[in-house]
Amino acid sequence: MYSRPVPRGPLRRVAVTGSTHGNEMSGVSLVQHWRRAPEELQRPSFSALPVLANPRAAAACRRYVDLDLNRAFISTFLTARPQPDDPYEVTRARELNQLLGPKASSQAFDFVLDLHNTTANMGACFICNNADNVFTMHLCRYLQLQNPETLSHVYLYQKPEEESYSVDSLGLELGPQPQGVLRADLFTQMRTLVAQTLDFIELFNKGTTFPAFEMEAYRALDHVDFPRTEAGELAGAVHPRLQDRDFEALRPGEPIFQMFSGEDVLYRGPGTVYPVFINEAAYYEKGIAFISAEKLRFPVPALPAPAPAP
Amino acid sequence: MYSRPVPRGPLRRVAVTGSTHGNEMSGVSLVQHWRRAPEELQRPSFSALPVLANPRAAAACRRYVDLDLNRAFISTFLTARPQPDDPYEVTRARELNQLLGPKASSQAFDFVLDLHNTTANMGACFICNNADNVFTMHLCRYLQLQNPETLSHVYLYQKPEEESYSVDSLGLELGPQPQGVLRADLFTQMRTLVAQTLDFIELFNKGTTFPAFEMEAYRALDHVDFPRTEAGELAGAVHPRLQDRDFEALRPGEPIFQMFSGEDVLYRGPGTVYPVFINEAAYYEKGIAFISAEKLRFPVPALPAPAPAP
Repeated sequence: MYSRPVPRGPLRRVAVTGSTHGNEMSGVSLVQHWRRAPEELQRPSFSALPVLANPRAAAACRRYVDLDLNRAFISTFLTARPQPDDPYEVTRARELNQLLGPKASSQAFDFVLDLHNTTANMGACFICNNADNVFTMHLCRYLQLQNPETLSHVYLYQKPEEESYSVDSLGLELGPQPQGVLRADLFTQMRTLVAQTLDFIELFNKGTTFPAFEMEAYRALDHVDFPRTEAGELAGAVHPRLQDRDFEALRPGEPIFQMFSGEDVLYRGPGTVYPVFINEAAYYEKGIAFISAEKLRFPVPALPAPAPAP
Repeated sequence: MYSRPVPRGPLRRVAVTGSTHGNEMSGVSLVQHWRRAPEELQRPSFSALPVLANPRAAAACRRYVDLDLNRAFISTFLTARPQPDDPYEVTRARELNQLLGPKASSQAFDFVLDLHNTTANMGACFICNNADNVFTMHLCRYLQLQNPETLSHVYLYQKPEEESYSVDSLGLELGPQPQGVLRADLFTQMRTLVAQTLDFIELFNKGTTFPAFEMEAYRALDHVDFPRTEAGELAGAVHPRLQDRDFEALRPGEPIFQMFSGEDVLYRGPGTVYPVFINEAAYYEKGIAFISAEKLRFPVPALPAPAPAP
């Protein structure tokens, strides 16, 4: 919800959302737990609000009921006049926009952390719409420095000029975990990353400054679909040499699919890319076997301390 | 469908079913492929029929539409008068009973192999209702001998006096694989195991005899649910020391759950058990975190050659 690249003051209104996809169990279970035990989300200068973003999908243990809530926070839906037959997630996006927004307004929550899982072998991935938000980039850097033993990556998904379609300031994606399964190891890892996020906000609120640094990140380029028959059925699978290799270099001529008929399909792109969301269960219906990304390095300016609250 | 412990003659009517659970992708994709390329299921003495057991669930990539098809092959459903508001899977069970049965009758298919995936780390698991079927026990033994490098287990699920509720003569369960995801490695493994099953039937049909042996298998004992709140929400996860340890010994005093509040829940049973289906996604709604099993060894008599067809 928050849109200023550098906050003007301390962040007081902070939310942590789970069940934006109802079968991504780390966030669902954490938010359900925090609603019973909210003290874990308290810091001296603020208390984060745990929000069950899509309770119906969580109850049904499905990604969504009618449509993907994580693509529903767009003006078309948020500003349209409500209708009785609106899809559930459109209604829910308006409710969340009331609770946490209005989107991009000065009354909106200062920071929303949205919790996700993927079936892809992506480790810890910090998902931002773009690199412009200096505060978020510093948070990602902080999380990386706090967890030097953990593989973690920053992923930028928004195309230039595209409207942000999600509820969050930052998406925290952990994988691999099957849909509908809660693994204790990922639960603990997500819990730790959320606590560290709140710690970072607390440090910022207290007046800590963070120096400039150079960020490495991955930016989405293209969607690559599975090989399919004319009827749309799968005709091949992600190649064993690509499976589980998220964020690793894929060079022209390397295999990407293994056809059921036996042949390999090779990557024909013009240059090296870095596939992400390889074999994510939820993306089959979107026609995505993986997303190719480019690797970037760019400078992030220092994050100044916030102005004291008036 | 087949019920005689030792077939009287060669097996001619053989089926391979996938999508009994519509989001278990190895079987769904293999059966879809074989319907386009049925020659792979041909052997000199028979051709196996590829059957998409639950086409609507497969199209929706869900386990089932209305209820679990794999629990629907019971007399109550199969013999009741059809009603317009019957659940889809009840109607579909009757259709499959017409195609492959009638269940336990002399017109039924001789052998039905049903293809499954689990999110549990069960490797290759051969699922039989009980140990009485000499032919099936020899098939399991054959598959184990053909794949000495692969961990595989025989699992007996049926309680004494309980009616068999599934369509199959043998269930082939491969894991771990998330629901809705097709992994090339498991696809290839399942394809090989199906080919070897057909090879075994061909050997038997040709007059091969198989000597007596001693079988090791696991038999279901009890269902163990997750720790839950009064509202039914999860209050803990499968313990990291139990997760992924299917078929390994669990002794009294060893941890089985990690509570969100921090404590461990220990196994309090009277003796060693062997957990299976640990953290299977589809079993959350059934109230099953894992199934405890006992390990058995028992003699299996020789399998005589079939009488020549009249």
